[in-house]
Amino acid sequence: MGSLGNDAHEASSLFNLNPLDPEEFRRQGHMIIDFLADYYRDIEKFPVRSQVQPGYLRKRLPKSAPYNPESIETILQDVQNEIVPGITHWQSPNYFAYFPSSGSIAGFLGEMLSTGFNVVGFNWMSSPAATELESIVMDWFGKMLKLPNSFLFSGNGGGVLQGTTCEAILCTLTASRDQMLNKIGRDNFRKLVVYGSDQTHCALQKAAQIAGIDPKNFRAVATNKSTEFGLSPVALEAAIQADLEAGLVPFFLCATVGTTSITAVDPIGPLCDVVKEYGIWVHIDAAYAGSACICPEFRHFIDGVEKADSFSLNAHKWFFTTLDCCCLWVKDPSALVKALSTNPEYLRNKATETRQVIDYKDWQIALSRRFRSLKLWMVIRSYGVANLRNYLRSHVKMAKQFEGLLVADNRFEVVVPRTFAMVCFRVAPSAMAITFNEETNVNELNAKLLESMNVSGKVYMTHAVVGGVYMIRFAVGTTLTEERHVSAVWKVVQEHTNTILNSYQ
Amino acid sequence: MGSLGNDAHEASSLFNLNPLDPEEFRRQGHMIIDFLADYYRDIEKFPVRSQVQPGYLRKRLPKSAPYNPESIETILQDVQNEIVPGITHWQSPNYFAYFPSSGSIAGFLGEMLSTGFNVVGFNWMSSPAATELESIVMDWFGKMLKLPNSFLFSGNGGGVLQGTTCEAILCTLTASRDQMLNKIGRDNFRKLVVYGSDQTHCALQKAAQIAGIDPKNFRAVATNKSTEFGLSPVALEAAIQADLEAGLVPFFLCATVGTTSITAVDPIGPLCDVVKEYGIWVHIDAAYAGSACICPEFRHFIDGVEKADSFSLNAHKWFFTTLDCCCLWVKDPSALVKALSTNPEYLRNKATETRQVIDYKDWQIALSRRFRSLKLWMVIRSYGVANLRNYLRSHVKMAKQFEGLLVADNRFEVVVPRTFAMVCFRVAPSAMAITFNEETNVNELNAKLLESMNVSGKVYMTHAVVGGVYMIRFAVGTTLTEERHVSAVWKVVQEHTNTILNSYQ
Repeated sequence: MGSLGNDAHEASSLFNLNPLDPEEFRRQGHMIIDFLADYYRDIEKFPVRSQVQPGYLRKRLPKSAPYNPESIETILQDVQNEIVPGITHWQSPNYFAYFPSSGSIAGFLGEMLSTGFNVVGFNWMSSPAATELESIVMDWFGKMLKLPNSFLFSGNGGGVLQGTTCEAILCTLTASRDQMLNKIGRDNFRKLVVYGSDQTHCALQKAAQIAGIDPKNFRAVATNKSTEFGLSPVALEAAIQADLEAGLVPFFLCATVGTTSITAVDPIGPLCDVVKEYGIWVHIDAAYAGSACICPEFRHFIDGVEKADSFSLNAHKWFFTTLDCCCLWVKDPSALVKALSTNPEYLRNKATETRQVIDYKDWQIALSRRFRSLKLWMVIRSYGVANLRNYLRSHVKMAKQFEGLLVADNRFEVVVPRTFAMVCFRVAPSAMAITFNEETNVNELNAKLLESMNVSGKVYMTHAVVGGVYMIRFAVGTTLTEERHVSAVWKVVQEHTNTILNSYQ
Repeated sequence: MGSLGNDAHEASSLFNLNPLDPEEFRRQGHMIIDFLADYYRDIEKFPVRSQVQPGYLRKRLPKSAPYNPESIETILQDVQNEIVPGITHWQSPNYFAYFPSSGSIAGFLGEMLSTGFNVVGFNWMSSPAATELESIVMDWFGKMLKLPNSFLFSGNGGGVLQGTTCEAILCTLTASRDQMLNKIGRDNFRKLVVYGSDQTHCALQKAAQIAGIDPKNFRAVATNKSTEFGLSPVALEAAIQADLEAGLVPFFLCATVGTTSITAVDPIGPLCDVVKEYGIWVHIDAAYAGSACICPEFRHFIDGVEKADSFSLNAHKWFFTTLDCCCLWVKDPSALVKALSTNPEYLRNKATETRQVIDYKDWQIALSRRFRSLKLWMVIRSYGVANLRNYLRSHVKMAKQFEGLLVADNRFEVVVPRTFAMVCFRVAPSAMAITFNEETNVNELNAKLLESMNVSGKVYMTHAVVGGVYMIRFAVGTTLTEERHVSAVWKVVQEHTNTILNSYQ
């Protein structure tokens, strides 16, 4: 820093150190590493789901920012005492809620390097390595998934790292919207129709809202047990036909591999065959289950992807890469660029003008972008394809283990088939007294069971309601989880079920 | 991890360690801290702007992902040898390009904690501390800026951390679009008009494109030297009147405090007065200069903010908080929530239903969100209001120092008034032989000067073209910059100017 202001009062509180002093960075950096290593070591001591009440923190922190600097020691003490109690421990081995976000050492280190370099990689020029590593790693990952060459840079497609699936869907939806509007004219904006199923992630609805699609033209096609809650090509075709007859213009389908509620899989190939003749853009949302497709035994779930236009998965969900890291591949990057590019003078540069480089700012919503590929690169290299497959398989194996325990106990029901590393179960109606046999009461009892387990702090699971059935989701995916944790959870489930069933006698 | 798959070949390459093993985390974490501390210590050894050619990295890295794990030592060696040469060193004290992104130890530590906890804070329930700390810190920061109470939670407004200004603008634009459509009906979508100036950041155009606003209805009102390239309320009113007469519907204005090209300031109060009667939403984009407004002597630049609807700044630009961290305050959070909320069953929870909590997923594009407030909180506490002001003032002082050197040398011209920590200058036409006195040649010479300095690796600056004038932007804001670096840059500028002017003789 240069010499500082003259205000005597303010100068008196001066730190003499530069806020990025290398040796002070070293000292404080080592402190935080030890803090976090201890946190992981001790993580099972904390209740998995935070037990604080709304507003807890406002009571504990000052109303205004401090005027004078505070030491890192004081701040870390406050992290321990005030922040940690309000954290739901997503990295706990007893965390089985939502979809876990699997952290790893390599993912963490990659984020540290990215934060340390702190480059703002909007275009190639602003930090060539950020752009080039991203395109290389996206080709690596694409090959691991056996994506067709048309999704790789070598096949004139390409991949980009976004923050989340919401952004990936919004970008592809905007690109396809503008493609369609160019054909049919902007006067027909209100006729555009988006398709998903009633199991599609809410990201699609949100993206459609933001992109200005008339809410009336958002089709969540109903699914049911006969297709295991996958989107039926027949039902989709019927919906499209009805819309065409009403003079509307179908333009976007989001198909899902591994839905959020129950990891259902939409049949990609047949769905693509249905929409092909209408010029509908197909996006495959494999946010959760896409990672598993690096294992040959799971790859068939994305068969047909070669007919789709774009494909995304969240490496921060089940690929050991910390939040946020959504991988999006597209066959036609120019569609994204046409919809999302702006070229202000202050970003003009020779590299861009030669057209030999990618400027990723035109592939996403934001201009500024972090050097996210570092963490994906470090994860892939640190573990290698071999171990990554093994890690994923170990999660699936643990889910099977839990499924086996449920199946062997006739008080429980596995409600939908387990496909990946998540089991959806409930206390079966048959386990209850006859008066509680109606669906609503069964649902109520299971909701109580889940809440009582979560309140115990020993485990955290969440729920879904599909086809009117309330189910408890047991999602394995946290990196620290071992078989012994699954066994321990099973005990918790049994104990709480006993208590609940007894209370209903 | 549970026990692993049976594939003999894959099992042979197995790491026995869990990928989040606490002691291995500690070992590797300390290695990276030392790597980065050394990087900061040695950063002046590297050319500021990367000197690699397009495609350099593809030649150096394997075409496919490794099958077997690689050691952290190997990977770090590759970071040093292959990645660092492709980095433009945004943290170098000789970096004066674009707007710098000021890193700090506290910002880095906050990002580490956030990555370490790796919570996915979409709603309150998923990690109460993430939501609560964010709302508290946004109130702190709002008070530091003397934002009116109506932008704070205590005044029924509130703040949220987004990734970038692009996202902040897209969210507020979508909220105001839907508010207006509710009044005028969706049939009038094509009549909606967005306003900015020809100096407004391209984020506005991009947001309007994504939100489906007809490109014909995007008004970049021309600015000129008479208002120092600030948006004229008179010109704005004329544009609005013309649109109203054409039957269009004005609904959104983005005013800027500190434009990207030349840090011009739009007159917020008078602009708000103009649009008030039309029900236009006013967003203030203070991405760069907003931070400076924590200093009393700069606060007047946002006078009138009390009449606006939303206000944003990038803490990752000039507030020592690493990328990404955009602070957005709004008066009416319900407008965001109405436009951006989705409420799927799998996220239902008691806390949300009591309406005592904030679910930030409904204030932004994405569902998933990082625990960004940790870094902003740590920055504010580690340095305190006093030092934060002093740091910002020191940057302004260094910019003044550079301006003084330019002014004293009559070969140079400060092209537009310096307002914050950026100086826009050029070699003056008068310094050149008479035949080169035409504007295009003056521009050409200055472009050559800039490129020759950047190629030297000693400094990195970028350019702008405003009112037909090509200017070199000298933006102070990198944390490690000291007065001695500014003096050194001045020597570089003089040497290269001498060479260029001589070559034109």
